[in-house]
Amino acid sequence: MLRFEIQATCAETGARAGLLHTPHGTIETPVFMPVGTQATVKGLMPRDLIDPIDARIILSNTYHLFLRPGHELIREMGGLHKFMAWPRAILTDSGGFQVFSLSELRKVTDEGVMFHSHLDGSRHMFTPESTVDVQLAFGSDIMMVLDECLAYPATHDATRKSMDRTIRWARQAFTHYRQQEQDKCSLFPIVQGSMFPDLRRACAEELLELNAEGYAIGGLSVGEPRDLSQQMVEITAPLLPFDKPRYVMGVGMPDELPEYVARGIDMMDCVIPSRDARNGRLYTSTGNLSIKQARFRNDAAPVDEKCGCYTCKTFTRAYLRHLYQAGEILYSVLATLHNVTRYLDIMRQMRESILLGVFPTFLAAARKASLKDE
Amino acid sequence: MLRFEIQATCAETGARAGLLHTPHGTIETPVFMPVGTQATVKGLMPRDLIDPIDARIILSNTYHLFLRPGHELIREMGGLHKFMAWPRAILTDSGGFQVFSLSELRKVTDEGVMFHSHLDGSRHMFTPESTVDVQLAFGSDIMMVLDECLAYPATHDATRKSMDRTIRWARQAFTHYRQQEQDKCSLFPIVQGSMFPDLRRACAEELLELNAEGYAIGGLSVGEPRDLSQQMVEITAPLLPFDKPRYVMGVGMPDELPEYVARGIDMMDCVIPSRDARNGRLYTSTGNLSIKQARFRNDAAPVDEKCGCYTCKTFTRAYLRHLYQAGEILYSVLATLHNVTRYLDIMRQMRESILLGVFPTFLAAARKASLKDE
Repeated sequence: MLRFEIQATCAETGARAGLLHTPHGTIETPVFMPVGTQATVKGLMPRDLIDPIDARIILSNTYHLFLRPGHELIREMGGLHKFMAWPRAILTDSGGFQVFSLSELRKVTDEGVMFHSHLDGSRHMFTPESTVDVQLAFGSDIMMVLDECLAYPATHDATRKSMDRTIRWARQAFTHYRQQEQDKCSLFPIVQGSMFPDLRRACAEELLELNAEGYAIGGLSVGEPRDLSQQMVEITAPLLPFDKPRYVMGVGMPDELPEYVARGIDMMDCVIPSRDARNGRLYTSTGNLSIKQARFRNDAAPVDEKCGCYTCKTFTRAYLRHLYQAGEILYSVLATLHNVTRYLDIMRQMRESILLGVFPTFLAAARKASLKDE
Repeated sequence: MLRFEIQATCAETGARAGLLHTPHGTIETPVFMPVGTQATVKGLMPRDLIDPIDARIILSNTYHLFLRPGHELIREMGGLHKFMAWPRAILTDSGGFQVFSLSELRKVTDEGVMFHSHLDGSRHMFTPESTVDVQLAFGSDIMMVLDECLAYPATHDATRKSMDRTIRWARQAFTHYRQQEQDKCSLFPIVQGSMFPDLRRACAEELLELNAEGYAIGGLSVGEPRDLSQQMVEITAPLLPFDKPRYVMGVGMPDELPEYVARGIDMMDCVIPSRDARNGRLYTSTGNLSIKQARFRNDAAPVDEKCGCYTCKTFTRAYLRHLYQAGEILYSVLATLHNVTRYLDIMRQMRESILLGVFPTFLAAARKASLKDE
């Protein structure tokens, strides 16, 4: 059960600021959801995500948790919130995307998708109904329907066939979901259609009939140019209900966040801040830096002087570079803490600018700065 | 510059409780020093070590820091405290032990020890004087002299020769140290002598002439039976000045800590709590557990119900096992946090019992419980 409240809209762009009330607290939108793949945002304690990062919602992956530790165990342990000691909202994907990206052996039929675990080769089946059941076991605040995610590029014909299947699966998922006696978990359908505007439109129209509490745009960040992803969102977002949250899945780089917000998006998620952190790529208010570079060897400055995170308030670039070079766990912890803070700071700044009616200025400045290396 | 204040002594054993005042705060003894090999206690932020663990001193390794990032860089960055953002006391070893345990190629001469880096094979020389200089660059509160650490078993003849060299090196180190114009860093000599009581005695007597601010007992935990290590400490500790801190290097298991305290030891260090944590071995007030075991799969209890650490107050064994199985960074962080807390709790309990005059009761109970698996 969600309640979405729009607080302000931008007069010149599609940007909006709102409040999304969930059974596990209120989320200020636009929001970026840190990814907690295996029931943990890699390296971060829940308390660090809460104070001072103030993350209100995280995303976790159904595929991974289904395989390990298993949804029945998580149900037995009181649900995902309790299991991972995360008191705030959780969105889980359907597992579809990971089946397509991680599982070598898979077979898609009208019934669902059969796949072999990337961990031990064991065989499993995801159906529109089963993935709802798995997510209900987690007790997710927001669940996603099973969809088929095509690689880029795909032909118009293949995309239409796949999209039709995604729509059928969404209907089945909603039928099953509405038969459950629960009012805590919401379900979002996912608009597919690859890079074809007509199919995106057709898919959105069909899914609107489900009268869902929110809608996602999927099938992006699958290898296409950034312009194309943004174009697809620009076409699709206005077709979705104005008064419901819109979620673009799996994006993006820091300089893409304002582009999606400008196109009317309220929710995003991506592994970039945490994965790049571990690989030495740090995002700052003045650009990006690769901490492994020799020039940071004796750099006594923090990663980002304007950042208020523990990492920036406490440590130098020189120390972080040392930890990185030495392969220390603490490097990953501190770097992730910073990058996630940076992402959420960008979101907060955008939200603030929308509320103040100056988002176009923010957007122009963000575009001018673009994504440069320090 | 250290000041050691003995607050209470046990009437039946050699145990004592004291305060060791250092340039970076006061240490309550007996104390266990968590090991921060590469300028980080693996996985832990300094703030987590301070509150609520309240570690007052950590140990860092000269060998590792000398090779990477280098003592000159650390000096340039303002010393080790500032570099790693650790405001409390730091003890550094001389690097000798690591040269003997990590470096494949090494040659000991009267001058010092030539070795090849385990990282890149580069050739380096440690002398009694150079290791003092390296530690002065760190700005350590307590520095250790270069010593030769023999493997177990060693012959009486080889031990005597090595011990004589260790004594000569200690004298050289002290001469060099006392020529420096500084009053912040203290230097401890190290009693060697392998498992030979006569040599331990001889070595201690010679080193007493240095009139150091504290004394260490080295050359233990090198493969000998536990009884033998304790016997060597029992022989050596009473030979050391009563009014100065006594430090046994590289020990021990949780159930060994009371044994050394009973023998008059004030300071200890060991990688066990952090290394074992990462390997799945957790120490509790009721025994030990190997978190990877299947029986913890759905165990909703904390690691240790009596422990007040964030890990135990927040997470279940089932969740920790999941993180361990999934190879998650957060597992190492949470497990290390717990084990270090456990070690420091044992030390605090011992200290309290000494102050209250009931240490013999504590010791008897500890011996009865021994180190059992849960």
